[in-house]
This record gives sequence, structure tokens and C-alpha cells, in this order.
Amino acid sequence: MTDATTAPDAPNPEDAAALDALYGDFAAGNMMPLWTDIGDLMPAAPHPSAIPFVWRWADLLPLAQRAGELVPVGRGGERRAIALANPGLGGRPYISPTLWCAIQYLGGHEVAPEHRHSQNAFRFVVEGEGVWTVVNGDPVRMSRGDLLLTPGWNFHGHHNETANPMAWIDGLDIPFVHYTDTAFFEYGSERVTDESTPDLSRSERLWAHPGLRPLTGLAAAASSPIAAYRWEHTDRALAAQLELEDEGHPATVGPGHAAVRYINPTTGRDVLPTIRAQFHRLRGGAATSTVREVGSTVYQVFSGRGAFVIDGQEHPVSTGDIVVVPSWAAASIHADEQLDLFAFGDQPIIEKLDFDRTLTEAAN
Amino acid sequence: MTDATTAPDAPNPEDAAALDALYGDFAAGNMMPLWTDIGDLMPAAPHPSAIPFVWRWADLLPLAQRAGELVPVGRGGERRAIALANPGLGGRPYISPTLWCAIQYLGGHEVAPEHRHSQNAFRFVVEGEGVWTVVNGDPVRMSRGDLLLTPGWNFHGHHNETANPMAWIDGLDIPFVHYTDTAFFEYGSERVTDESTPDLSRSERLWAHPGLRPLTGLAAAASSPIAAYRWEHTDRALAAQLELEDEGHPATVGPGHAAVRYINPTTGRDVLPTIRAQFHRLRGGAATSTVREVGSTVYQVFSGRGAFVIDGQEHPVSTGDIVVVPSWAAASIHADEQLDLFAFGDQPIIEKLDFDRTLTEAAN
Amino acid sequence: MTDATTAPDAPNPEDAAALDALYGDFAAGNMMPLWTDIGDLMPAAPHPSAIPFVWRWADLLPLAQRAGELVPVGRGGERRAIALANPGLGGRPYISPTLWCAIQYLGGHEVAPEHRHSQNAFRFVVEGEGVWTVVNGDPVRMSRGDLLLTPGWNFHGHHNETANPMAWIDGLDIPFVHYTDTAFFEYGSERVTDESTPDLSRSERLWAHPGLRPLTGLAAAASSPIAAYRWEHTDRALAAQLELEDEGHPATVGPGHAAVRYINPTTGRDVLPTIRAQFHRLRGGAATSTVREVGSTVYQVFSGRGAFVIDGQEHPVSTGDIVVVPSWAAASIHADEQLDLFAFGDQPIIEKLDFDRTLTEAAN
Amino acid sequence: MTDATTAPDAPNPEDAAALDALYGDFAAGNMMPLWTDIGDLMPAAPHPSAIPFVWRWADLLPLAQRAGELVPVGRGGERRAIALANPGLGGRPYISPTLWCAIQYLGGHEVAPEHRHSQNAFRFVVEGEGVWTVVNGDPVRMSRGDLLLTPGWNFHGHHNETANPMAWIDGLDIPFVHYTDTAFFEYGSERVTDESTPDLSRSERLWAHPGLRPLTGLAAAASSPIAAYRWEHTDRALAAQLELEDEGHPATVGPGHAAVRYINPTTGRDVLPTIRAQFHRLRGGAATSTVREVGSTVYQVFSGRGAFVIDGQEHPVSTGDIVVVPSWAAASIHADEQLDLFAFGDQPIIEKLDFDRTLTEAAN
Repeated sequence: MTDATTAPDAPNPEDAAALDALYGDFAAGNMMPLWTDIGDLMPAAPHPSAIPFVWRWADLLPLAQRAGELVPVGRGGERRAIALANPGLGGRPYISPTLWCAIQYLGGHEVAPEHRHSQNAFRFVVEGEGVWTVVNGDPVRMSRGDLLLTPGWNFHGHHNETANPMAWIDGLDIPFVHYTDTAFFEYGSERVTDESTPDLSRSERLWAHPGLRPLTGLAAAASSPIAAYRWEHTDRALAAQLELEDEGHPATVGPGHAAVRYINPTTGRDVLPTIRAQFHRLRGGAATSTVREVGSTVYQVFSGRGAFVIDGQEHPVSTGDIVVVPSWAAASIHADEQLDLFAFGDQPIIEKLDFDRTLTEAAN
Repeated sequence: MTDATTAPDAPNPEDAAALDALYGDFAAGNMMPLWTDIGDLMPAAPHPSAIPFVWRWADLLPLAQRAGELVPVGRGGERRAIALANPGLGGRPYISPTLWCAIQYLGGHEVAPEHRHSQNAFRFVVEGEGVWTVVNGDPVRMSRGDLLLTPGWNFHGHHNETANPMAWIDGLDIPFVHYTDTAFFEYGSERVTDESTPDLSRSERLWAHPGLRPLTGLAAAASSPIAAYRWEHTDRALAAQLELEDEGHPATVGPGHAAVRYINPTTGRDVLPTIRAQFHRLRGGAATSTVREVGSTVYQVFSGRGAFVIDGQEHPVSTGDIVVVPSWAAASIHADEQLDLFAFGDQPIIEKLDFDRTLTEAAN
Repeated sequence: MTDATTAPDAPNPEDAAALDALYGDFAAGNMMPLWTDIGDLMPAAPHPSAIPFVWRWADLLPLAQRAGELVPVGRGGERRAIALANPGLGGRPYISPTLWCAIQYLGGHEVAPEHRHSQNAFRFVVEGEGVWTVVNGDPVRMSRGDLLLTPGWNFHGHHNETANPMAWIDGLDIPFVHYTDTAFFEYGSERVTDESTPDLSRSERLWAHPGLRPLTGLAAAASSPIAAYRWEHTDRALAAQLELEDEGHPATVGPGHAAVRYINPTTGRDVLPTIRAQFHRLRGGAATSTVREVGSTVYQVFSGRGAFVIDGQEHPVSTGDIVVVPSWAAASIHADEQLDLFAFGDQPIIEKLDFDRTLTEAAN
Repeated sequence: MTDATTAPDAPNPEDAAALDALYGDFAAGNMMPLWTDIGDLMPAAPHPSAIPFVWRWADLLPLAQRAGELVPVGRGGERRAIALANPGLGGRPYISPTLWCAIQYLGGHEVAPEHRHSQNAFRFVVEGEGVWTVVNGDPVRMSRGDLLLTPGWNFHGHHNETANPMAWIDGLDIPFVHYTDTAFFEYGSERVTDESTPDLSRSERLWAHPGLRPLTGLAAAASSPIAAYRWEHTDRALAAQLELEDEGHPATVGPGHAAVRYINPTTGRDVLPTIRAQFHRLRGGAATSTVREVGSTVYQVFSGRGAFVIDGQEHPVSTGDIVVVPSWAAASIHADEQLDLFAFGDQPIIEKLDFDRTLTEAAN
């Protein structure tokens, strides 16, 4: 038990020899005692290997561009995606134990071929335009501020309709799926199956109407049927919360702190079975409480400047920077100017399995 | 059993006398035999007392106007609402066994005082503007094509900001609540508690964003937190379905038949615990299949011309007309020109209690 | 509004004439104003037509016996069941607006033929034995203290294997199904399809094991798959609660008041979609709080003596007596000697539609 | 992609150098490319590191006995539990990626002190008696064939009331909790808080009645409130299925194969949020189909002899042997004589996150 337990008393030499023999026999028998390992296995509170960390957009984008020059995108490698590897996770391409976050880069007129997998995926666009992701044959425009979904086992490919490259972030549950041995993968078309470039996907035309669902889609679905959550809607929802706050009505989660959750309209719950996606807006000068939460969260600064304070250490951030907050880290955010933050996390996993806990500490 | 059962064999005279005595003693003991009544109580299929019926807007509106001249609106009577009474229901103000549908009329600058009740209510506006309904202090504009909700136990009043009268329909579960003895009622303010006339209610500003919910509202609610479902969204959703059909994609429930359900964004389910609300659009020339469904449905023609065929009888309809289809009636709809139909029904009651059945008959 | 509202001011003679004309035109147009009727339709609190009432087993059983001599049981009349008709419900065979409760009587070696219906049914046995009810081909012994289920749309018939008659009570949602126009009915075999008389039904052998379900039955079912809830289990569960109370542990709902709910093991919820079934045991001298609850409840005394106090009036009861407590009546129970009470009610309807409210008054 | 993908074409030397530099900069920037790793991360089908494996009771028990002589049980080490370490999992004390399975050993009159943790736990007893586990102050007898639950965050300790040692298996979600960083731990009393030795725990007396729940426990609980699932009930349920099969009724999951799931009576679902527990009985000569299932399962032979065939390799087993079947391994079981198998697995995790898939192969 970290910080708290003491090992059993040291044995005498005879017993020590017997104990050595016993431990050897344990090892030979593919057995391991709990009592030597319990402090690591069962700590008093979560003690993540993952560490709080910040990746700078100013570092990520040039490396992605270099990859764009050197590494082809196509069948086999499938995607020119570069994962953010949490330094605490021993060289695995995981931003947290459960989550994958990568910068993906598609050059002018390039195509990432279609495939599908049990892993759930989304993309979030911090800048740029010109790529359409085709999800089960439905072309989905990718533009600044949009959240794009590819729930598990939907065929998808991307193609860049312009001469200019485009980069965005991918979020997936690759580590969780790898860990739980639940991965399936299948190749699809070499090119995208619909090269048209409509402003709105068919999924949006059917589903992205507030408070309405089509009579052709009445069953609860595990993942959202909306392929694109557009920036204009997110922006408007956040702006409305701050206006309501100004008018004296309850609307914000804290002073100057507007926030929305992206939801599956068939259930009102999270967009993907394993991944929560949210968006926060802090007014300049606003700050959140310091909160510990079970589960890991990744933030990307969409615009503005401010800082995260995680376990007492301050990390200034600006547009495009990506921050990971591991489970149970004490985190707060403050904004130097209006700070817009996209966030995703593994809380659906935590909550469905009844491990959720939150502790709000005294304000900084 | 209707159509099928035969009474027990007639007894001999002695037994008949004994039987009479027995039946008399049953009555004296507040008892009633099943065997004499079973055909009515337990028919082979639903045998509603309510009948299919059509009320004409051209009849309803002038009567409501006359009431506006003669009957004040205020505390005690509470509302200038005139219920549509199904001729089969023996003089009760019920459009179906479970549902209330009334035309409500508010003169220029009139106020309907605030109250609350356990009954769930909505309003639908087929024409006119100028009234705000104030739901728990939140002023909600009422305009053509809008669906406005007042879930049970929310204070609400209405006020007309113009010099012109306005009429709309109210839908409530008054009969069901009366039947189940679940009614509670409480008076509120004589005037509405917020006389401002914003374009959008606070509930819409917080909640009416596609695929988003505020972090201040994460619990599942029994009723929708959206007070107004605006016509522009409904219209756009229906138009999109027909466009998608034109493009060759699945989107409509049948050829030329677009339809949406109004939903509670916290659950993806019906807007009210007892009432389903939907909107249908049929292209000119389109027709639905003939369907029998357990539960009763009320339609109001929002625009266009066409006809309902119910249990073999054709009822031509045009704008404003109100049609009730009782449980298990065989109903189809066809459109002479584009036909827009608002619909509400008691299917949430039927489905939550596992009595739902649907039978689609061979096309007409 | 009962007790609270006042009618709109009386109009002058001219207006009165115009109003009369208007009301006449309303009637001709199948319309009815709310303002004249609102006090009845929307009372301040539930104001049931059903009244609290007690039927005496000493009255019921002899009448059932006389019916046994005079009225055959067979196809057409289907069952020799005599309903308890609440005196407040205008001569309908309903114990409450939603519930049917009847005494059913089957003579020696008689058979009640098989049929099925959408109505949900149960039987409870206050005395006697010798009848098997056959539910979808599964013979279910009926013995003292047992609760037997026949969920909607299961074929069922009864046969008496002995020379002695047997009586029991039936509980169904006949009034609710009639009211909502959800009734379906179908005849089955003239005789029961399995005349064997096993001690335990197949449903019990598969399902009635505490905390276990068969791997062949993993889906949630709307109704319980257990056809018989045996007295020995109910008795043991109630006895255990009182013993735990004696040992100082929380187990009873109030001092000296043990109570269990019969549940559907596939969900942990009520046994039938519309009907709750529970069993109460009060020690001699114990009393419940006075509670008002939305929804109606029927009790049958299984054994012992005591009294119900409903809306201030005391009703002494003993074995076999049947008591109905309408919605929102203020009811308490006290026991002169150990009082065992079977109870059923319509609370699943009330709760699924979000109309539930309870008010516990100061103790008597 | 295992078996299927090909690496991108090898670059020319200049590009190779540039690529080396790029990969170095990736590493320096805590980034890792997807394209070099995708075959491992996203295989065509689950490719577990965990391997099928069998531990022999004849090996486990003597080692546990030696530990009993050499290692004290008490505060700090907490439990004399020796985990079964899957040889494929690199020396971690995990039987599968998500599950912990240990043999625990308590000498005569020993006490394992109380503590609580967020990890969910159960114990299953293949032989022996004399220990009571005290769960939140409720003493629970541990006997042969019983399943005992300790859901997360319940205080618990064990004490041996006899002079003889006792061994059993523990199952927990320690690996999953460690992986997801959801672990909390707290010490409790040095001795158990209730040293009485009742035949039935209070939890059983309140809850272990078929189809009944106490009115004091009406809320859905994340874990079962039943602390002990007794062998007599499990045995009777399995025997009944085989008898029903003999009588020609559907009851078994396959010929000669009875099976039950242990359930949480408040929901009808799995006993613990993360762990499924089941029991299988195969008649002598019976065999299951060969099935691949996402998720890992652990079996302990309770009695009898037979064999597991996993990915084509046969593993004979007898009483006490423990077998792990990793995710998506093709497994079948056949019985030489009646084979009773306790089983637990991580399927609740898999199913709640929508990763469940099953593939039944052609019979062997």
C-alpha cells in the first residue's frame, strides 16, 4: 500500500531460505504472492504511471509536416498518424492508459484508404479545411472546430480535396481495446467510396436537428449516428451559457465557465461507448476549482491562452497545445484571455463500471 | 367476447329463479360476475368507445372567437380552452380515452394566470403569433409551427403582447390523469412572472443545440427540458429527408413520407412521460400504408390537403383540421398536395406498459 | 378546482343568452369548455370516485359456492369469477379504476378452459388446494399462500384434481386494459393441455433459485418467468426480517413491520408490467404510519386480525377480507395479533409514467 | 495488421536517413508513429498476450500450505493469497489482462484483518470449511461450493474458527483497476468486527429468497446485496435443468449441458460491475460446441473429470484445476464423467462497452 503499508516482519535466516525456496517454487508454478506486491497493486488512491504532460502544437505540426514529405500514406500503414506517447507509459504510443491521441496529416490530394475496426474514433480539427472523411459511404466535411465521429466497425477513409495539406487530432480507445483484447480490423476500399464533397453529411441532414429524430431511427444506438458536430453549434451553445450567466441565470458550471457535452441523440449519453467528448470555454480571468477525478482526460486548446495547474505544477498553454491529466491528478485551469478547450476522456468506461469518484478541493 | 363468445346455456326456470336471487345477492354485496360481461370487458381485439372523428378548423376557430367575446379568462376558470369531445365518449371532454385536445384562445393583451398541475401539456401553433407562455419563469415565444412544452408540475401562464387575438391547440393527458387519480393542482401568480418577450427562451438557449447538452444538466429527466421546438428545425429536418430520398438514400418511412419524433434530449425518448409528439410530411400524391396500432393518435393538419381513410371511411382534410384515430382503427393517409401533419398520441403509456402492437395491412 | 376555485363571475342577461347559444353550439360541434369543468377535471389533489371499501370473506365465499351450484364453467363465460365492484365506480366490476379483483371458484374435477389475453393476471390463494393452473402448457400447483402469475398473452386454464371445490382471488388489469383499448383475446384448448399434477412447475424448477438464472434465459422480460411464488419462501423472508429486527439490525420498513415485494428475476422489478404485488407482516400490536400514496392498492388478509384506518375511518379485518385503498387516501394499518397481508396495486403504471408521490403523515 | 498488412515500401538511402532523423525527433518529442506499430496495435482479430493455461490444484494447494507455515497473515501484507500468473503476461500476477485469481490460505484460528478497496472481489470454495468472511460487519460462512461476494468498497476480513487450515480461490478485478487507475484502499479493524459464526449471513436472510426483495431495499444496486450464493441452490438449479432435459423440455444450453449465471437480484444482471460468475454442469460424455468469445474466462473444476480443448490443444482436468481461456481463443469442453465447473470472466466490462462478439464454430 503506497505510503501506508509495511512489509511483514523480516524472517529469520532459516525461514528466509525456506521462503526463497518457496518463492522459487511459486515462480516455477506461475504463481506470485500478493503480500510482496500489494502496495503497488492496491494503493490507497490511484497512482498512475501516466504523468501530466503537455505537447506543443508548435512542435507537433512541423514533425507531422516532415512525415508528410517522407512517409507515404496508404494500405498497410493506413494512416499518417503520429501518436502522443505519455512519458510515464514506458514507450507505448498511449497518451493515457486507455486513450490514444495522434496528430494526423494528409497532404494535398492524398487519400487515406478505407478500413474499419472495433476501436472507436473521433477527429477534432484545430485548424485547416479541405478534407472529407467518408464514414460508411457518407462524405463528412472536416472544418475548424468540428468534432467528427467514427464509431467502432464503421468503414472510413479520408481524402484531401485541395492542394494544401491538413492536420487534425485523432482520438481513439486503441490502448483500451489492445488491453482488453477486443480488437478487430478489416480492410475496405483503396479509395474512398464516395468522392463528393457536400457541405453536410447525410448523417447530419438526418440527425443534427435539435430535439428531433427521424422515424427511421428509433432504436437506441451504442454510438451517436451524427458524424459531425459543427463548430457553429458548439460556439453558439457556449456563448449562450455565458450570456445567460450575465443575465443572472444558472447556466455555467462555475463563474465564467461554460461547458457542453457532445451526446448521442438516441440516448442523451456519451457519443461513443468508451469516450466522452466535451468543450469548455473560460472567460479571460476565470478559473476552475481544483478537482480530482477518476479517469484520464485530454485537452486540446482550441483558442486563447491560459494555464493548467496539475498536481501543483503550472503549465501555460496556447492554441493547439495538448494536455493530458491522468486519473486522480489534482487539476485546475485558468484563462488569461478567453480560453476554448476541447476535451475527451475515458469516463464512460469508469462510470459504466462504477468506479467514478470526484473530489473538489478548496479553491486555489 | 365480441363476435366470438356465446353465453352459457340458458338455465331451467328453477335455476333461473335461483340465479336471479344470486345476482341480486351479488349486487347487494358489491360483486359482479365475469361471465355475463366478458364479451365487453375482454374483446378479441380493441373495441374502443371513442370513434374516428374530424373537427374542422373552420368550425373551431369562430366558436373560440365567440368565447373570446363572452367568457373572461382569469383565476378560477384559468384558461379559455374548449375541448374536442369525442362523440363516442359519452359527453366527456376527451378526444380519446387518454388525451385532451382543446383550442385555446387569448385576446389582445389578455393574460392567462399562472398555475401548475401534474398533467403534462403541450401547445401547437397552426397559425398566429404574439403570445408568450411563461414556464417556470422562462418566457417562451409561441409562433406558427412551434411545439411548446409544459411538463407536469411546472408553473405556467400565457400573455398576449399584441392587440390581436391568437388561438392554438393544447394537448394534455387530462383524461388519463383523471382516470388514474393522479391529479395535483396549485395556483401561481395572477400575472406571468416575467413579461419580457425574447425571441428564444432560456431553455432553448441552454438546450436546443443539436447533439449537445450543458454540463449543468447531465441527469436524465422524465420530460424534455426544451420548452420550444421551433418550426424552422422541424421543417428543415423534413425537407432533408425528402431530399435524401430524392438522392437515393434511406431516410423516409415510406415513399414520399418524411417523419420526425420530437424528443427529450436527456434520454432520446418521448418529450413527455405520457405523450408522443411527431410531425409527418407527405408529398402530393403520396400515401401511407394502412396500419392498426394500439393507442390513440390525434393529427392536426398544419398545411396542405389530403385525406384520412379510417376503418374504410374517407375523411378529406385541410389546414387546421383535427383528426382522432382510436386504438386499433385501420388508418391510412394520402396527400393531394404536400400535406404537413402534426401528430400526438398516448403511445408512451402503451409502450411502457408493454401493450404495444402494430399491424400493417396490405396497401390500399 | 375542488375546494379552491371559484366560477367566473356570472354574466349579465344578454351575455347569458349569448353564452347559452355558445354552449349549444359547442355541444353541436362536439366541443366542451374547460372553464366549467376544471374543478372536477383538475382537482387540487386526487379525488377518486373509488371509495375505500372492505369485502368480507365470510360473504364472498358462500356467494361463490352458490355460483358453483348454479353456473357452469366453460367456453364462453370462461371463468366462474365474481368481481368485487367498488361502490364508487358506478356499477362497473372494478375494485379500483385500474384493477380487477375477483373471487374465482372451481368445483371438484371442474376445468376452466384455456385462453389467453393481453390482460396481465395473477391468483392468490388464501385457503384450499387441489387446483393446477396450466400456463403455456406448464402445470402449476395452487396452494395456500402462493402467488401464481399469468402474464399477458400466455395461454392458461385451470383444473381441479380433487372432489372438493377451491376458491381463490384473481387480480388483473382488466379495467386499465379496457380503458386504454389494449385488449386482445384468443381461445385455446377446451381442456388443459397438460393434466399432470407436479409439485413444482417447470418455470419454478428453472427460475425459482435465489440469485440464479438459467443461461437459457438471459434477456430481460417484461413479466416474471416464475409462475409460482410459494408461501414457504414468502413466510421465511418475512420471519427473517422480524428476527433481524429483534437482533437489532435494519430489516423492517417500520417497527414490527416486515414486507417483501414479489419481483421479476430478469430485472429485479415488478412481476407484471402493470401490477405490483407485495406481502406485509405486522406483529401483534404493531402499526404502520399513515401514508397517502398515488395509485390504488388492494389488500387481502391472509391471516390474523387487525384494522385499516382509511381517511379516518376504522375497518376491522380478519382472514380473507379484502380491502381497497384508493389513490391518495390516508391509510394506516394496525395489528391486534400477527397480521399477514397480501397486497397488490397499480404502482408500476403510476411510476413508469412519473406520477408517483407519497406523503407520510404524523403517526397516529 | 497481423497476417495481413505489409509495411510501406522501403525508402531510398537519403530518405532513410531523413526518416531516421524524423523518428529520432519523434522520440525526443514523446511521439510515436502509427504506421510502424499498427499490426500489433490493431490486429485483424484479438491476439492476446495471455495464453491458455492450466494450474493444477495438486500443485497449488501444497505451495499454499508451505506459505501458511512461512508467511504470517496480517496488517501490511493483508492476505496470504498467491496469484496465478499467466505465463504470457510478462511476470505480472494476472491470470488474464483484467482478472486476478489467487489461492488464499488461512491457518487454524488465523485472522485476515479488515480492509476495503475499490476492487470487486469474490471467493469460491472448492473444498473445506470453517472460515467466516465478515463483510461490512456481516459474518458469512464459507463452505464447499459457495460463491461469496465482496463488492468494491465494502470492509471485509476473514477468520478461521477451527484448528484446521482452509484454502479457497479469490477472484478480483485487480488488473483492470490497476490498469484504469481506479484503485482506492483503506484499512479497517485488525480483527473482524463480528466474530459470531451464524449459518446464514444477514444478507442472505434478507435477500436470498427466490423472486422476493425486502421493501427496505428497492433501489437498483451496482453489485449484488447477497453475500453468499450457497451450493445447495446452485446444485439444485443445475440438477433441475438436466431433469427437465430428460423430460423433453428446453432448459439446457446444449445437450447435457446445464448452466446458471449468478445474478444481482436488484437488477437481474451480473453480481459485480466488472465480473460475471457462472456455473456449468456437463453430464459424463457431453461436450460443448467450440466457441470464440471476446473477453477472458477462468474456470475451476469443482468436481469430475474432463478436458478443455483450447485453440486445438487438449487439457485434461480434474477437481480443483484452474483453466484460463483468453479472449477469442477457440474453446470447447467435454466431460468424461459429470463435470461441475465454476466460471468467472470479464464479460460485464466487454458488454457494457459494446465490444462483445461470439463465434460458434462447427462442432468438433
